[in-house]
Amino acid sequence: MKLATLKDGSRDGQLAVVSRDLSTAHFATGIATRLQQVLDDWNFLSPQLEDLYTTLNVGKARHAFAFDARACMAPLPRAYQWADGSAYPSHVRRVLHARGAEVPAGLLEVPLMYQGGSDDFLGPCDDAVFADLGWGIDLESELAVITGDLAMGATPDAALESVRLLMLANDWSLRALVPAEVATGFGFLQSKPATTFAPVAVTPDEIGPAWRGGRVHLKVASFVNGQRLGEVEGGAGMHFHFGRLLAHLARTRNVRAGSIVGSGTVSHDDEAQGVSCLAERRALEMIHAGEATSGWLRFGDVVRIEALDPAGQSVFGAIEQRVRSTAASEAADAAVAAPGPAASGPAADPAPARAAKAA
Amino acid sequence: MKLATLKDGSRDGQLAVVSRDLSTAHFATGIATRLQQVLDDWNFLSPQLEDLYTTLNVGKARHAFAFDARACMAPLPRAYQWADGSAYPSHVRRVLHARGAEVPAGLLEVPLMYQGGSDDFLGPCDDAVFADLGWGIDLESELAVITGDLAMGATPDAALESVRLLMLANDWSLRALVPAEVATGFGFLQSKPATTFAPVAVTPDEIGPAWRGGRVHLKVASFVNGQRLGEVEGGAGMHFHFGRLLAHLARTRNVRAGSIVGSGTVSHDDEAQGVSCLAERRALEMIHAGEATSGWLRFGDVVRIEALDPAGQSVFGAIEQRVRSTAASEAADAAVAAPGPAASGPAADPAPARAAKAA
Repeated sequence: MKLATLKDGSRDGQLAVVSRDLSTAHFATGIATRLQQVLDDWNFLSPQLEDLYTTLNVGKARHAFAFDARACMAPLPRAYQWADGSAYPSHVRRVLHARGAEVPAGLLEVPLMYQGGSDDFLGPCDDAVFADLGWGIDLESELAVITGDLAMGATPDAALESVRLLMLANDWSLRALVPAEVATGFGFLQSKPATTFAPVAVTPDEIGPAWRGGRVHLKVASFVNGQRLGEVEGGAGMHFHFGRLLAHLARTRNVRAGSIVGSGTVSHDDEAQGVSCLAERRALEMIHAGEATSGWLRFGDVVRIEALDPAGQSVFGAIEQRVRSTAASEAADAAVAAPGPAASGPAADPAPARAAKAA
Repeated sequence: MKLATLKDGSRDGQLAVVSRDLSTAHFATGIATRLQQVLDDWNFLSPQLEDLYTTLNVGKARHAFAFDARACMAPLPRAYQWADGSAYPSHVRRVLHARGAEVPAGLLEVPLMYQGGSDDFLGPCDDAVFADLGWGIDLESELAVITGDLAMGATPDAALESVRLLMLANDWSLRALVPAEVATGFGFLQSKPATTFAPVAVTPDEIGPAWRGGRVHLKVASFVNGQRLGEVEGGAGMHFHFGRLLAHLARTRNVRAGSIVGSGTVSHDDEAQGVSCLAERRALEMIHAGEATSGWLRFGDVVRIEALDPAGQSVFGAIEQRVRSTAASEAADAAVAAPGPAASGPAADPAPARAAKAA
């Protein structure tokens, strides 16, 4: 089953079921209006959504409409928890090597995980707005799960049973703000702005044998301005599977339905697969050429992230976002609010901004 | 206005208005059923709740009932964000001194803040359940605010305008798990289990001149097993006011309605006021006597936290929680599920557990 949340002007949007091929959708009205409702009462509501999904896939749903990723919010536009692991050792090794920092001794024994902000997620095609290029703007392509309730002290196996939905994320990172926050020991806060999620969340059965061993064995493809950054195997390089990550989170507390847990940046030792963030690309440049020649993202850059099944089909739909400056974003908002001659004001690129707003 | 959320078996409970003296309450049915709804639409819904509050205080509300803190969940039983500052330098200095760590150079310039879990808060009289005494169980008495929407890049003054409600919290901490998590730089995760909030959230006007300069000038009283740990002035020792803390959080991202931001452990240089956590008491023992003689909390211990106005009146109601072991808690749950001869099973203290469940 594939689920999306469509923009309707409200904070939580409208829940819709999306066809397997991402071509059509159908509002879940009559079953549930918000995804959190479904997660709160999964065993009762999800079979009803599955029925609608079956009907939609065979083309018999009465009020189906064309699915448009640009109309999507994050599947959970806001959540009660977002905790992000760092389950790919090749990512950690490369980034720490580039920073000149030592790889921690327990890297393969205890998952690294940070608690992220979850009050304001971005939709897959929303602009990512930042005030300052000096912050070192970077993408991080990640896989994630949404859980049901999980009791404190759960084992990794029990934890895996709580996985309800899989997602694809862009965990925006501000690299220049990381060192100071890491140095305090209090963890990432300003360096991890609003996270983005791909248009649809899918049940694990949806990817068949690609969901095995608590890992998502799909290729995660990342592009910047149409240039391939990587097409990285999501399962092979993941040391701690999602059950291990969830058990780590649940060690001292209950984890409640609707919690999102991320994999960390998808990575693999095989450099031919490329990378899923610019920090790793820069790290590899340093390792091989002695210096990083790639920069961070700039205003106007477009990031695209997709997870592909063996047939090359997009599973979650694509994240496709433009990096925008706060100033350009504010000018575009003003242009939308007061169209006409004044609309050509100080915005750096008002036309695409209006297009994005209208989507 | 004072608001509480009463247990009704649901995840979000039932919103109620509570009288100023905490003696009576009235369900907000007809206005809103959940506190998050009110925060999502504050300007429309809060005046209606204020009207009910006025009626309740003069004893004219039709369906008022006796208010019982034991029937309360946290005012927001789950939230979209919980970010906790560390705004009292005397707390940081003492704890770091005891750990033999250096006080960071920017302590008075940039707030320390960590992102906490917000999917599963504890009610004021809920047992606090832990699996292992070796984790170093400690309380932390804190003040907190709930915000409305706050735009990225907001100034401290603008941020203060977004404060909707004030709360009192117990930010449970597992001291033995802190060093390893701080060492990774990823911040607190397992070392910060579910946070507790006092029964009622109050609008800032409710405390009159005690809300000034972005600080809550009330005394925060903390007790362990009836022994006074401290009665600490909540405003005087707070270096960064709540507007500063909120602006820090909003520097790189929007902060959405219903976000909770904490002050960090209430502390003051004046040692005669006592402390608000055992870590600070142990730190003072080390500083003055060369070694810490106080231990951490043990199973069966009862923690009480209250904020008092100048007349000695409890503003938020009291947090009063028993520290319980996972084993005792599970046995008590079993006893409730199957009362009768089997109920006297392996629970260490089944009777108080049943009483707490029945409350």
